[in-house]
Formats: sequence, structure tokens, C-alpha cells
Amino acid sequence: MTRKIIIDTDPGQDDALAILLAFASPELEILGITAVAGNVPLALTEVNARKICELAGRPDAKVFAGADRPLMRPLITAEHVHGKTGLDGPDLPEPEMPLQKQHAVDFIIETLRNEESGSVTLCALGPLTNIAHVLIRAPELAPRISEIVLMGGGFFEGGNITPTAEFNIYVDPQAAQVVLQSGVPVVILPLDVTHKALTTAKRVDRFRAMGTKSGDASVALLEFFERFDEEKYGRDGGPLHDPNVIAYVLKPALYGGRYCNVTVDASNELTLGMTIADWWGVTDRPKNAFYIRDVDDEGFFDLLFERVARLP
Amino acid sequence: MTRKIIIDTDPGQDDALAILLAFASPELEILGITAVAGNVPLALTEVNARKICELAGRPDAKVFAGADRPLMRPLITAEHVHGKTGLDGPDLPEPEMPLQKQHAVDFIIETLRNEESGSVTLCALGPLTNIAHVLIRAPELAPRISEIVLMGGGFFEGGNITPTAEFNIYVDPQAAQVVLQSGVPVVILPLDVTHKALTTAKRVDRFRAMGTKSGDASVALLEFFERFDEEKYGRDGGPLHDPNVIAYVLKPALYGGRYCNVTVDASNELTLGMTIADWWGVTDRPKNAFYIRDVDDEGFFDLLFERVARLP
Amino acid sequence: MTRKIIIDTDPGQDDALAILLAFASPELEILGITAVAGNVPLALTEVNARKICELAGRPDAKVFAGADRPLMRPLITAEHVHGKTGLDGPDLPEPEMPLQKQHAVDFIIETLRNEESGSVTLCALGPLTNIAHVLIRAPELAPRISEIVLMGGGFFEGGNITPTAEFNIYVDPQAAQVVLQSGVPVVILPLDVTHKALTTAKRVDRFRAMGTKSGDASVALLEFFERFDEEKYGRDGGPLHDPNVIAYVLKPALYGGRYCNVTVDASNELTLGMTIADWWGVTDRPKNAFYIRDVDDEGFFDLLFERVARLP
Amino acid sequence: MTRKIIIDTDPGQDDALAILLAFASPELEILGITAVAGNVPLALTEVNARKICELAGRPDAKVFAGADRPLMRPLITAEHVHGKTGLDGPDLPEPEMPLQKQHAVDFIIETLRNEESGSVTLCALGPLTNIAHVLIRAPELAPRISEIVLMGGGFFEGGNITPTAEFNIYVDPQAAQVVLQSGVPVVILPLDVTHKALTTAKRVDRFRAMGTKSGDASVALLEFFERFDEEKYGRDGGPLHDPNVIAYVLKPALYGGRYCNVTVDASNELTLGMTIADWWGVTDRPKNAFYIRDVDDEGFFDLLFERVARLP
Ligand SMILES: [Ca+2]
Ligand SMILES: [Ca+2]
Ligand SMILES: [Ca+2]
Ligand SMILES: [Ca+2]
Repeated sequence: MTRKIIIDTDPGQDDALAILLAFASPELEILGITAVAGNVPLALTEVNARKICELAGRPDAKVFAGADRPLMRPLITAEHVHGKTGLDGPDLPEPEMPLQKQHAVDFIIETLRNEESGSVTLCALGPLTNIAHVLIRAPELAPRISEIVLMGGGFFEGGNITPTAEFNIYVDPQAAQVVLQSGVPVVILPLDVTHKALTTAKRVDRFRAMGTKSGDASVALLEFFERFDEEKYGRDGGPLHDPNVIAYVLKPALYGGRYCNVTVDASNELTLGMTIADWWGVTDRPKNAFYIRDVDDEGFFDLLFERVARLP
Repeated sequence: MTRKIIIDTDPGQDDALAILLAFASPELEILGITAVAGNVPLALTEVNARKICELAGRPDAKVFAGADRPLMRPLITAEHVHGKTGLDGPDLPEPEMPLQKQHAVDFIIETLRNEESGSVTLCALGPLTNIAHVLIRAPELAPRISEIVLMGGGFFEGGNITPTAEFNIYVDPQAAQVVLQSGVPVVILPLDVTHKALTTAKRVDRFRAMGTKSGDASVALLEFFERFDEEKYGRDGGPLHDPNVIAYVLKPALYGGRYCNVTVDASNELTLGMTIADWWGVTDRPKNAFYIRDVDDEGFFDLLFERVARLP
Repeated sequence: MTRKIIIDTDPGQDDALAILLAFASPELEILGITAVAGNVPLALTEVNARKICELAGRPDAKVFAGADRPLMRPLITAEHVHGKTGLDGPDLPEPEMPLQKQHAVDFIIETLRNEESGSVTLCALGPLTNIAHVLIRAPELAPRISEIVLMGGGFFEGGNITPTAEFNIYVDPQAAQVVLQSGVPVVILPLDVTHKALTTAKRVDRFRAMGTKSGDASVALLEFFERFDEEKYGRDGGPLHDPNVIAYVLKPALYGGRYCNVTVDASNELTLGMTIADWWGVTDRPKNAFYIRDVDDEGFFDLLFERVARLP
Repeated sequence: MTRKIIIDTDPGQDDALAILLAFASPELEILGITAVAGNVPLALTEVNARKICELAGRPDAKVFAGADRPLMRPLITAEHVHGKTGLDGPDLPEPEMPLQKQHAVDFIIETLRNEESGSVTLCALGPLTNIAHVLIRAPELAPRISEIVLMGGGFFEGGNITPTAEFNIYVDPQAAQVVLQSGVPVVILPLDVTHKALTTAKRVDRFRAMGTKSGDASVALLEFFERFDEEKYGRDGGPLHDPNVIAYVLKPALYGGRYCNVTVDASNELTLGMTIADWWGVTDRPKNAFYIRDVDDEGFFDLLFERVARLP
């Protein structure tokens, strides 16, 4: 039996790998891919999402454009990490498949209404703006969502866009608050775990060895993407954030975490967008998220290789 | 030529007077009345809105139900001021006119799309949740709004729900931020001006003297409503907040104010929901609202009496 | 019987009038004048304090220099209001009387230890840095202070240095917190009351009519000082802040206020240094200050004229 | 040549080990030990400091009592970690040596004035209240301090008293701000490094093997102290915080860190007392501290054993 997912994304090289992993996994039925502004503006992320579908040999997939800005703040982007297009690295052709006419938020709402309650999982790979729109506009749908598995935040590692904040949460902290307060089961894959899944040279080589279009594109994506982190951290390879979301949905046993309270600070500039995980349970704030801190990184990459190798 | 308005409201005794004033004014075309949670929960405010329409002899008016909770915070209500029903005082029958099926936010969006750009004014008498929904979901409509005239905030008078915050803004400070950052022309009628428009015994008597159903109901509304403020401030009569919004639309010359920056604090408990007006222009924050501080209170009440006397 | 006071001050034209009022009042015994950085740096305020003593014919008074910067923030000054010297206006000679060698904070501590417990009142006319030093270093002396009467803050009027903050509190909000949390009886004369005591042309004329050196200097001080406020508020005369502190000590019956909680916000830039008075008692924060809002302004100026006329 | 230090401390079992290490190290001349309120109230910390001096065979050492409460907040203590006395574990006799009459703050000020400029290092093992008093009262002495080496804060590990704050900084965040803004060279040994120096059973055994009074007391101290952390973290042994300060002064080569900006958040409850280290240099905040993140833990314990073994 397959699991129905919607992928909400702002591609992004690591988003691309996550989407490839999902397409290559027969356990998953991708109901739609919803683009959001994040790493680059919406006009680019929705095009990038379609490029990746075509790369995966899936021009039949449905891609929707969603919010072009955070709920309450101006958009901040990350071209310094992802390049001008957001998908710098491989040379992918302009997509021929169309963008869906429906707004991403309307698509998610309609899908949650029409599919069996509890059957749809939202996989969030970018700022949580689209998903917050859904929860603000149609709060009655919250109990129909199976779970929200998201890449975002960071507590023990600190942040990557400010000393305390991770990019996806910092871009739209209010959206993150809406998600965390929604009552929907939330699984968080923060920097604390993605920094344990590094794209070493040896791992990049395994993509190269596939000898497929997707394998070659993966190499180009990773070689561009890790550049920034290698300079910053001075280590071999960078963290591969977003594919962890799909890997968690496929094989939760690869991961270790704890159910605890997670709060987003939206009150002062020093700590704006910080995710505060009460990992040790020292406050009386209620547990509202499963916060993942550990990963079997070999297992994660094995899964990724095995699956991406199935693609054209 | 008439002016097209939508009244967004959480009745409330003073909302009731504002709606009566609007119905009694031939200069205004009321496209719809949209209810929001505020003084009391949504289930009551939408009923109250219909009761007032029927009192005004306008069962043909369209009443829509909107948001039942603020964007990001739990709902706070004010039964201690308005009574259990929100409309305690007069004995108004249960309404027979139907509630519209369309959601208030959808109605406002559709109306802004269909009416001539720049022709519709939003009159906001409660928390700004519905209007923020419109601006978040359809930001492209902001330039089509003529202006947003709202009752809310307070700076020189302090607040009425906390030492620093007025009720409408405190209930949904994030919604207020969305409105103030939208670029739509905003006119604010804060406590600083409504505390200059008091319902003295003499003024209540003028309603009594009308000898109409609406006049009698106004007396009952005001006598209940002023009770709270008389106890608090120990003066003759209380401020009549919301009708100032309609009076401003009808006769702006009754009012005096200044175009200045207005910011809502959402960052700390001490000052949550405070509207900070840079009245003296001592910061470099951009001017974004017309902040009203003065009123010709005799003129305001004369307008109110003259109009309400026209109703059945 | 005389009342023993220490005047802590950052002269300032209005500080000068306050000190003249005190010297001219036989009910008061001035144990010392302690200078603090505020309107202008300490190097000027201590000189200004001595100039005023000599103007009052009291070269025997003791002037001490205290803190040259706030507890935790860099010093902000107000030359745009007070002029380069802090005492622009009259042409006062350089003082010949010496500055005391003892540090102002040591002097206050020693005085509180040596004088009878409960016999000394601290009159604070500037940022509260010196007094906070005393309370931080020797908290055991708090119960020996009769009361702290201070000019500072503002709630209903808003601020004068930011939209929400008054100068004395804004310069050293941490010091203000220390004072308000000390348990010492605190009387606050905020902008809300000083803006009701205006130096009209007619009132300035009464100083001119004295025909004394002090009267002439008062005219020159006031004519310089009110310039700033007249431009800002466009009214006849400006508020005369600091002499209200001395007038309150002499004749509390001139004033009206309320015992309530007063808190200083030190947590965010929007409202930094704001004094939040829970005037209406809507929170459960404990009452910790007597917050003055009303003044018999004719009585205040009559007292001021009658006294200053006694000086040379 | 010996290095002159003052140890400011709130003993505390780990403070005790730090003091023993200092006494056992001929490279150090301990000018005085200043007690501060922290783990337990001042009345206990000053007694504990004297008990440790006597244990080390140094009843001639000078112990001073300092601040009994943080600058601006009520005192929070940690009996749940350290036991009722703050030094639970070994059975140490009541001290016979006297407490010095001089206040700790006066002692530090006098010492900094009298010793050669740049010759005195302050080793801070508790809340920074005493040292902040010195810097507030006598800011002109800041350039005479060689450096301030302190145990406090935590960034990558999160906090130990709240999810974001370490105890010493949380107890007096304003004092920490004063220290970090003072311009004095500051070296920080945060939880991020002390959590890498664990008291394993094997290491405790090395103390036991000494067969001295100090060795036995160390065992009792550590066995009590690690109980709390073992329950919390479920690992063998707990971090040994404070001796790292003395070890750093003795052998900085054991440690690795980075010169970066460190800020203390004092603005909101969620992150109160958090030390925010701009480790990656992503802000333009100026570098103001040497933040230590790595330790040669074998080297640290070897130093500790070798030295404590010299004591009676
Ligand atoms: Ca992404
Ligand atoms: Ca209302
Ligand atoms: Ca002054
Ligand atoms: Ca300690």
C-alpha cells in the first residue's frame, strides 16, 4: 500500500534530491508538488520544481505555485547558497510540462477535503508559508492531516542564517508558529540531524557511478551545493538537508528523536526565528513536536543511492 | 452618489449603533456586513449582526460569518463589558433573516475583485482578523481598496484591556500588523478620540425622545454599555467607540488627526498589542496611517441623532 | 522643622529653576547636590550645578560629581534641547566654589548611614544612575530613605525622546528599574503632569518683574528652554519639568495622583525606556509608586515666583 | 614567575575542585577568594569557600563575602544540583578561619588599584555579580585587568537551567552584559566545552587512589555532583565545569576556541540569559570574547590529578 504525500518545496539543490528520492520510491504516491518562495523567489521555485519532475521522467506530475512571500515579513532569499537560479549546478532544460492553474493553497485544501481523513502527509522542504495558509484558512482540516514532516530549525547546532536561526524558519517564523500550534502531529528534521548526513566525496562518487541522467544531475547539484558549507565548516561535504524528510517518511527507523516542546521565537531580533526545543523537559510547555536529533547516516545514503539509481 | 462600504464587525452595543448609523445614511451603500469573533464568539456576533439589520428594518441586508479566532492567538472576549450575548440591554427578537452561506473572507475578496477598483471602503469595528485574511490570501487586491477606516488602538489614553493595549488590536495584533503593513490607506479612530465622544445622560435622552423602536433600542444599548465605563472612569457616560468609524466616512470634517507611523508591538507581554503612534515624528519610521485624535463631539452626536431618528 | 533633601540633577535649565526653588525655601535643608550625566555630560552638569549655587548666593553648598554614564548603556544627551552647555540662556560666570572630592554615590551612602533613618528625601531631576548605584551597592540603606521624588516617565502623554519614552528614564532604564524595584516609596512626576505646568509669556513676565539677578537669570533660562517645546507643540510656553519635584516636596496638595504599579520596559527597541503605569489597575502587578497626573498649575507657579523672588 | 589571580566563586562542588586545583598549582598566586550568591545563598557560599581553603591546608587564604543577590533580579539557586549546603557529599568541618571584613567588591577594586596594571586575572566560577559591581563602580579599572576567565554560557549544547540558558549567566544576565561590554579581554568556558570533560568512574577512581584527605573529599564531591547529570544525560559521569577555568589559566594549550561576538539576551522570557555566540561570524556584531569549544579532556584530568595529589 502506498502513502499519499504532498511535497511543499522551494528548490533548492537539496529539495531536488528529496523530490528525486520521492519519485523513485514506489511506497509513495505524490499527490502534488507545491512551490513556495524561499531559497529563491516563487517565479523560480515553481520552474525548478517542474525541471526536477522532468528530470525524474515524470512530466505527468502536478506542480502548483503558492505563496510568493511570507505571512508577515518581506521575503529573504539565499542565492549565496543556491546560486542565481536556486538550482545552479546541472544544466537542466527549461520545463515543457505546464504549471497547474490552481493556487497551491487551494490545491492542498481541496485535497485534504477529498482524500480520506488521516491519509495525507505533508512533506515540507521550505518555509512553511503555504501550509500556514492552509491552517489559517481552514483550521477544521487540521485533524485530517496525517502528519507534517518538515526540514527546519536547529537547536544544538545553532542556526545557519543567523547565529540562532535556521533559514526555513527564519524566513517565515509566524508560519512556523501556526504549524507548531496547530495540533497536527509534527516531525522536525533540524540542522541538528542534517549536519550528521554529509555529502562526502565518496558519497558523491556513488551518484557518479550510476551512469544515469539523474545520477549525473545529482553529482552536479551536490558539487555546487556543498561548496558553500565546505568553505564555512572546512569539512568534506556539506549537510544534505531536505532528502531527510522523504527518507524519514520511507524509513523512520533510520532516525532518533524525542517528543518535546518546540517554540519559535518571534519577539526579538537577537533570536528571531530561533526554534527552541525543550529537549530536556525543563519547562512546563506542552510537548508538540517530534524533534529528531540522530540519524543512521549510512542507512540514509544507502536508501538515497538505491532509489535514485532507479530513475532514468 | 453613494459610497460603497463593507462593515466588518463584532457586535457589541457600540457596533450596533454604528450599523444603525450606516443604514440610516443614504450616502452609504452597504455591500455586506461581515462578522468576526471579538467582543463575543463568532456564533453570537453573526446573530447580533442580523438582529441589528432587522431592527433597522433591513432584513434584506447580507450578513456573512468570518473568522472564529485570531490569526495566531487564542480568542479573548469581553463579556465583562458587553454582557453574555454581546448585545445585552435591549430585548431584540431572534433574527429571521438568513446568514449568507459564503465565508466572509471569500465575500470580501469577491467583492473587491468585482467592484470598480478604488470604490470600496472597509469599515472595521472589531479585531482585524477577517481583513488580514483578505490581505494575506489576496495581496494583489490591496490597491483596489479605497481605504480601511478602523476603530482600534490608543496611544495617549493608554489601553483598555491592558495598560498599553486597546481591545480590538490586542485580540489580534498580528492581523493589525498585516493591515498596517499592507500599503492600503488606513484611518485609525483610537481610544484617544472615542474618549472624547461620551454618551452623557442628556445625549441618551435625545435617543429616548425619538419615540421609535430604534431610538428605544439605542437607549437600552447605551444604558447597558456605559455602565462599565462609568464605574471605571466615574464620569457621566462612556465613550461610544464604533459609530465614529461610520461618522468619519460620512463627515471627515468632524475629526482632526495626523498622518504618521503607527506600529503594533507583538514582541513582549508588557506591551503586547500596543499601537505606537509616532505622532511627533521623532523616529524615521515611515508614515503609514492617518491617526485621529480630535473630534467635534457635538457634531458627531448631532449626526448620530439625526440619522438614527430616520429609522423605524 | 526643616526637611532634609539631596538633589540629584543633570542641569539643565529646568533643573536650575528647581535648585533655585529649593534654595529659596526655608522648609528645606539641602544636604548636598549630586550631579549625574544626562542632558549633557557629567563634566558640564557638575559645573552647571555649581553655577546655580553661586547664582542663588550659596557658594557654601556642597556639589558632588557622580556617574558619568548609565549603568549598562552608552550615554545619550540632549543638547538639541538644552544647548551646548546644558544651561544655555543666561550668562553665568564660571563657578569659583570647589567641587567636593567625594564621589556622589559615596556621599549619598554616607549621608543615609549618618542621618536619622527615614529623615532624608532624594529629589531626582535626571537619569537615576547615581541613585541606582546607591541601591545596588548598599541595598540595606533602602529602608532608611524617606522617599524618592523623581521627575521622569510619561504614560498618557507618550514620550519626548522616543514615541513611548521620556528622556530621564530612556537614558538609564536599568537604573529606573532598580529604583522602582527597591521598595523605597517612590513619587513620580511624569510628563503627564509637567505638560500641565507651562511657562506662558505672562508667567515669564512675573520673573522679569522681580528685578533680581535670579529673576533675570530665570527669564533667560526659560526663554531658551521653551524654544524647543514651542516649536514642537506650537503653544505658548513649554512644560517646566524639574521644579515640580521640589514643589511636590514643599506642597504635595498642589498635586493629584494614584498609587499604582509602574514598570519600565527594557526589553525591546520599540518601547525601550517606556514607563508603563497600571493606572486603571487592570493587571495584578503590585502597586509600587505614586504616579502623579494632576497639578494646580497656578498654585505651582505662585509658589515658584514667591520663592525665587526671595533670592538675590 | 607566578600569575596573580582572584577567584570569584559560589561553591559548589565543582568550584571546590577548581579552588583545590588553584591551591595545588605553584604557578598561581591567589590574592583572594571572593564569594557570591549563586548555587546557594551567600551565607553558605562564603562558608563553603573557607571550608575548601582549610581542606587544602590553606587557612591563611583570604575569603571575602560579596553580593548577596544579582544586580536586578531576585536570586535563583540550584540546591537541586548541589544539595542543601551547596557542598553536599564530603563531611567537611565548620571552618575556623575568619571571613575577611572587607566587602568582596571593595577588595577587588583595592587590589586592582594597588597591583601592577595588567597583572591580575579574575577567575569567575559563579554568577558575575561581584565583577559587574567592580566594573560599574570603577570603570576606570577595566584596563588594569589582565583578563576575565569565566565559566558560563552555552550555545551549541543549549542551556542547563532553561532550554537556552546556562545557570551562571541566567542568574545574573545583566552582570554578564556588563562584563561582555567592558572591553576587558574575556575568555568563556561554556557548557559546550565542559560537557566534554566528564567525570567517568575511572577518573573518580584516580582521586580515590591518592589516599589523601583532598583526594577522598574530591571523590565525595564528584560522586554527589555527578548524580544529577547522570540521571539527566544517562551517561557515565557528569561535566566538571569550574576547574576548567583554572586549567585554562594554567595550560591554555589544552583548549580550542574562537574569538567572536558573544551577546547575552535579556529581553524575553523564552531566551532570557542565553549567550549567543556568533561563532560563524554571520553578523556584524563586534568580536568581544574568546569562546572555547574544545578541550583535551585527558590532558585536563591529568593536570587535575597531578595537582590535587600534591595537597594534604
Ligand atoms: Ca528547501
Ligand atoms: Ca466592535
Ligand atoms: Ca533634569
Ligand atoms: Ca560555580
